[in-house]
Amino acid sequence: MILAFLGTAGSGKTTLAGSFGKYLEKEGSSVAYVNLDTGVRRLPYRPDLDVRDIVTVEEIMEEGYGPNGAIVESYDRLLSHVPGIASRIISLTNERDYTLIDTPGQMESFLFHEFGVRLMESLSEPLVAYLFSPEILRRPHDYCFVRFFALMIDLRLGATTVPVLNKIDTLKDEELNMHRRYLEDVEYLTARLKFDPSMSGLMAYKMCSFFPEIAPPVRVVYASAVDGRGFEELETLTYEHYCTCGDLT
Amino acid sequence: MILAFLGTAGSGKTTLAGSFGKYLEKEGSSVAYVNLDTGVRRLPYRPDLDVRDIVTVEEIMEEGYGPNGAIVESYDRLLSHVPGIASRIISLTNERDYTLIDTPGQMESFLFHEFGVRLMESLSEPLVAYLFSPEILRRPHDYCFVRFFALMIDLRLGATTVPVLNKIDTLKDEELNMHRRYLEDVEYLTARLKFDPSMSGLMAYKMCSFFPEIAPPVRVVYASAVDGRGFEELETLTYEHYCTCGDLT
Repeated sequence: MILAFLGTAGSGKTTLAGSFGKYLEKEGSSVAYVNLDTGVRRLPYRPDLDVRDIVTVEEIMEEGYGPNGAIVESYDRLLSHVPGIASRIISLTNERDYTLIDTPGQMESFLFHEFGVRLMESLSEPLVAYLFSPEILRRPHDYCFVRFFALMIDLRLGATTVPVLNKIDTLKDEELNMHRRYLEDVEYLTARLKFDPSMSGLMAYKMCSFFPEIAPPVRVVYASAVDGRGFEELETLTYEHYCTCGDLT
Repeated sequence: MILAFLGTAGSGKTTLAGSFGKYLEKEGSSVAYVNLDTGVRRLPYRPDLDVRDIVTVEEIMEEGYGPNGAIVESYDRLLSHVPGIASRIISLTNERDYTLIDTPGQMESFLFHEFGVRLMESLSEPLVAYLFSPEILRRPHDYCFVRFFALMIDLRLGATTVPVLNKIDTLKDEELNMHRRYLEDVEYLTARLKFDPSMSGLMAYKMCSFFPEIAPPVRVVYASAVDGRGFEELETLTYEHYCTCGDLT
């Protein structure tokens, strides 16, 4: 079973992959770790496959590239290695119960680069956990944004995508409940958006109204690498995805 | 009039901002240039406002950060400067005909970070050019992805977003015509998606079917910093956005 952690830089992919892996191992599962981030310095897990053995952002910067150019260049150079990386992931998947994939630090290096698209196409039915932090949820239409963003990942990578609100240990109970309500109760969100007179509000209202017809049935996970909340649900969802035909309601 | 160039690293924001600015100046307009990229090494224009005067990715890396962490940290540090940057942009906008904003190298540093959201909220009716390269358009649902991505930017930043297929000088005429047809003729695209039996194909089909009801009326621009195609249209669109109530059909 493959679970790939995707999200913007700072959304907590690497930390969550490490803690969730430890949790699975404690539960008696065997876990493989795959690092696809060419720019990471330290990992909280021992990778079974590490793209930094092929190329790193920092060695490309030493050639004279700026940091943005070096990140893009590192994935350009990895492109020819996709078949090798994919077949190694497939054999890890056959050997272990879980293969956790820690995707590039910058989400766009995976979502907009051929490297990510081709790699995901080579794997069979990978499940994606799309991590986002509470701080990006400030206005009603931000909830619409993250729900649609999960669909965009699904569309681009052809992989079922579970939205994961991460770092919930930083939230008070009432804040978490508010986020839950906006993320899960689309009718509630749509009703709130109706009162937003801005152009963005109107567009969000229309998008959310169509959401139930467009979106596959996937529930939202609330997780914390600090206290382990959400781990059991993530484990269940991964199991259900692989063993009960992808119904993740 | 403000035009912000947004797109993933490598989509050609900086080069296009430079060439389009030169074109506008040749046409007799006065142009201000704003660089928001903390990681860029060289610029093809002389910035009137440059965030690198406040902080750079490379100086943060010298403190021990990896490249991804340093990029995020640079925008964390810029957050308290948003009011100053916004008021400088507003006064540039009053002094010159056009203010061209070259956004962060990594699009997610702008779209997912408070820095981008707050800055855009502080500006009045900014227009965004969302640049994407032909290489990300490989399958029918990729066209659906980019059309929806422009809506996502609009939703997040509250700014009218014009999709710009950039680097068209790398395309043969028949390739450009194919891209045009898929990007503009939503009925044609929807019909093609109907034949895709995959889950992504089905989702793209549903998304595209709703697209005309959700999307504001904005036309697509086809541009090249090499031969100047699309510049006149970009100029016209910017003018229409500010002077004729935002109808960009």
